[in-house]
Amino acid sequence: MISTKLTELLGIDHPVISAPMGSVSGGRLATAVTRAGGLGLVGVSYGDAAFIDEHVAQAAQGGGVWGVGCVMFTFDERPGLWDKVLGYAPPVIALSFGDADQVRRYVASAADSGAHVVVQVHDPEQAAVAVQAGASVLVAQGAEAGGHHKTQATLPLIPAVLDLTQGAVPVVAAGGFADGRGLAAALALGADGVMMGTRFAVTEESMGTPGFKSSLISGATADLVDTRAFDVVRGIPWDEVYRARSVSNAFTRAWTGRDAELAARRGEIEPEWAAAVARDDTSQRALFAGEVLDLVQDVRPAASVVRDTVTEAEAILRGLTARLTP
Amino acid sequence: MISTKLTELLGIDHPVISAPMGSVSGGRLATAVTRAGGLGLVGVSYGDAAFIDEHVAQAAQGGGVWGVGCVMFTFDERPGLWDKVLGYAPPVIALSFGDADQVRRYVASAADSGAHVVVQVHDPEQAAVAVQAGASVLVAQGAEAGGHHKTQATLPLIPAVLDLTQGAVPVVAAGGFADGRGLAAALALGADGVMMGTRFAVTEESMGTPGFKSSLISGATADLVDTRAFDVVRGIPWDEVYRARSVSNAFTRAWTGRDAELAARRGEIEPEWAAAVARDDTSQRALFAGEVLDLVQDVRPAASVVRDTVTEAEAILRGLTARLTP
Repeated sequence: MISTKLTELLGIDHPVISAPMGSVSGGRLATAVTRAGGLGLVGVSYGDAAFIDEHVAQAAQGGGVWGVGCVMFTFDERPGLWDKVLGYAPPVIALSFGDADQVRRYVASAADSGAHVVVQVHDPEQAAVAVQAGASVLVAQGAEAGGHHKTQATLPLIPAVLDLTQGAVPVVAAGGFADGRGLAAALALGADGVMMGTRFAVTEESMGTPGFKSSLISGATADLVDTRAFDVVRGIPWDEVYRARSVSNAFTRAWTGRDAELAARRGEIEPEWAAAVARDDTSQRALFAGEVLDLVQDVRPAASVVRDTVTEAEAILRGLTARLTP
Repeated sequence: MISTKLTELLGIDHPVISAPMGSVSGGRLATAVTRAGGLGLVGVSYGDAAFIDEHVAQAAQGGGVWGVGCVMFTFDERPGLWDKVLGYAPPVIALSFGDADQVRRYVASAADSGAHVVVQVHDPEQAAVAVQAGASVLVAQGAEAGGHHKTQATLPLIPAVLDLTQGAVPVVAAGGFADGRGLAAALALGADGVMMGTRFAVTEESMGTPGFKSSLISGATADLVDTRAFDVVRGIPWDEVYRARSVSNAFTRAWTGRDAELAARRGEIEPEWAAAVARDDTSQRALFAGEVLDLVQDVRPAASVVRDTVTEAEAILRGLTARLTP
């Protein structure tokens, strides 16, 4: 067992969190991670009421220490959905991708509900805002993460955030982690745990489609591309500072870097693209994945990911210490 | 003491290497690092005969396990200089930035001299080439490094390279390291040591100018920019896959992304730029630095960097292991 400020604060067994990935982290995955002793999060990025009533409800019924992950900017125009999320009384609410005003508002509202409030940050400046807003945990996400990310890499970002926050709150490392080597490294940097996305996306319990999972297994880190094409075709107003990393496919090769043209022709292109996604066409759909892709080679049960990650990290730390000479 | 396959192979005390940074890592810095028990490397990126006769000679006179770091592509047109480097019989020759043919030729030539041959790689594909060419050590450098780098981040790159090389050679992690937290994390990932650039660039023994060192101390990671402007103005034919990270200044703001125009107007711009560099004008000169910039806050003796890094890493590993519960 690895005890950290994170496990103590949340009352969980292992300092491992499954990232709240939209369309991937449903109630089944969150429940499996929580039951295995980690913290399972349901991704409510763009979910509608039906999604919340299915997946957040499922995680709530599973019990234990579970949570939701909410992309802040997508909730501002849908206050009813935020209230619906709060209605399920998640023990943990993870907030990501908001400006300073949104961070302050959603942290306050989430804290009022009694939840532990986790805020994802991408640089020390955002970390300072989140701590001041009252976050109870930070997730410092580096640029090697899958899906949306900013520019600073995890390895130097974690110590910089820790130097800034000085122990005020637990800091979880995200971006670049897929196994026990990563967890051991995160703890060595001073982090209190890891959040893993890609590794949990390729599990039995993930909502990822068969095409998505097989594309991630066969894909290599060298095949990844940073793109805004999927945001533009979906018409989701992501701040341009956040790029999304995906396995390269025909759609990214056609449209990456052509945001304005894609936006202008969206009425023509989106229906065909959405139809391709609906039939799990991997040449067209988003294949969000992080730079750990070379390390993810199989579909596994989420519980074994949690267990193996912790067991491997423990063995690494004991082995290294045994090799030190006085 | 932290013993690894790297320290055993090279016969050094500590698994810490100072990066061979052009115009920064001279004989004095290399000697200081080697005397402190690490591996000090003289950067012979573009050095002429006089540079080699001064700095490589100085490191050779210092004795111990020292080495040179050579940017391969710059030596092809200057075979006399390569022979001059070999003439000083460096115990370690570190090679970087070459295509597969250059890697094979320079590894063979360096190995013939009796040196340990270290090859820097930036992705698993390059690692496979280097091992097959006969490298005795790999440095896997991630994208958060200062100066020239490729795209994959260190944290996921190290395990991927280790999975590929399967213990065939020691693997040193580079990019994102500046202290004992980084060394402990690198060892946890399975690496056999770290190479640090920016941290050693800001030492008393570094050749960096006063303007360079003070710019790095006052600069923040958020101020960094990836640019080809310094390569273009200097007329150095870097492969475009390698960007250089520098603290942003008036020159990078004026010229980043305008490679073709800068190349076309080089005859007009370069003399004025070179004159500004000669007077240590930090608004114009390259201020190469890695994403560890937030962690580098002072000019220190190189020996204390080596000693503190190792001491801190040992304390971290012992502390983590003590916290594990069976």
